[in-house]
Amino acid sequence: MTSSVVPFGKPRGERADAARNREHLLRTAREMLAEHGAERVTMDGLAERAGLGKGTVFRRFGSRAGIFRALLDADERRFQEQVMSGPPPLGPGAGPVERLVAYGRARIAFLVDHHAVARAALDRAQPVPAGDASVTQLHLGILLRQATSLPHLNGLAIQLTAALEGPLLLYLSRPEAEEALATETVELLGDAWETLIERLAR
Amino acid sequence: MTSSVVPFGKPRGERADAARNREHLLRTAREMLAEHGAERVTMDGLAERAGLGKGTVFRRFGSRAGIFRALLDADERRFQEQVMSGPPPLGPGAGPVERLVAYGRARIAFLVDHHAVARAALDRAQPVPAGDASVTQLHLGILLRQATSLPHLNGLAIQLTAALEGPLLLYLSRPEAEEALATETVELLGDAWETLIERLAR
Repeated sequence: MTSSVVPFGKPRGERADAARNREHLLRTAREMLAEHGAERVTMDGLAERAGLGKGTVFRRFGSRAGIFRALLDADERRFQEQVMSGPPPLGPGAGPVERLVAYGRARIAFLVDHHAVARAALDRAQPVPAGDASVTQLHLGILLRQATSLPHLNGLAIQLTAALEGPLLLYLSRPEAEEALATETVELLGDAWETLIERLAR
Repeated sequence: MTSSVVPFGKPRGERADAARNREHLLRTAREMLAEHGAERVTMDGLAERAGLGKGTVFRRFGSRAGIFRALLDADERRFQEQVMSGPPPLGPGAGPVERLVAYGRARIAFLVDHHAVARAALDRAQPVPAGDASVTQLHLGILLRQATSLPHLNGLAIQLTAALEGPLLLYLSRPEAEEALATETVELLGDAWETLIERLAR
């Protein structure tokens, strides 16, 4: 597997000027996000700061949530690229147990880091964020198959995906639980994940 | 622990006539549900069939989703009562590993059986069903402490709760995935859960 399957944020077939606009808008949105937080990123504000028409922003993202989905999508690609071809143990080259543990810890950190963006990416019409859990499920399934001779691996891959991503996805729609996303929670979940994987693999 | 902590569907302090109305309404809603499915249960239809005023139904449930939340809540109590004081291995009297496996299989069946009711209980304002996952988490934590000497049990209880309930909660807001709730899925998840628990406990 190589890093060149899909160039980041540049879907195949996109015209060059459209791709440049897209990159420019995403970069501008990231700046606004870093400076003012997710609440202050709006369609109008983004268009103004990017020096592009509101129509361009609207056609590109469809809605305010669409901006955040695009940001999340670009970062997801980068994350999955690290998994597919980055350095071990997250990337190839380490043993499957070590990679399972590394994936879990990296994924927990990713979901926590992207918490504000992921919440802003939620549409009311799409109550539960589908996320890229299917990628996690696929990856966990492959590594579990290498690391263990457990029966019922398909079911286990589903359940371990939920174990890893579920606790963090739930925070997306429950702002009152946000304080639980402290560093201790990240370590708590990372340590528990490592225990889970080591027990399954031995 | 006894079965008399909270009489089903009759919150402490409810006046006798209000409790009778409530019981009558829930029974009527269940009949309508069994005969016509969740889509056909409405506030007006329920009031008419129960022979009570629309105002009474509204005050009792607040919204159509509230009817289903009340049904789900009553069944949750019954389920948890089986866990606390029903026959083993779901109830007390079996070893902790056997109880963990039994809880998981029973919980999967419960969530699948209550799928239509739980989906109808979703309010748009409450995107992710909180459910009674906290009860599952508490119960799994207690049994894991009895069954194992694993480190990081608090984190593990969170993750195993997500592993057990997450895959089924996700179906609530994704009608297109409903066909996956076939008998095979229930067995797949139940078998995987058993594998998970046995590995953690040995």
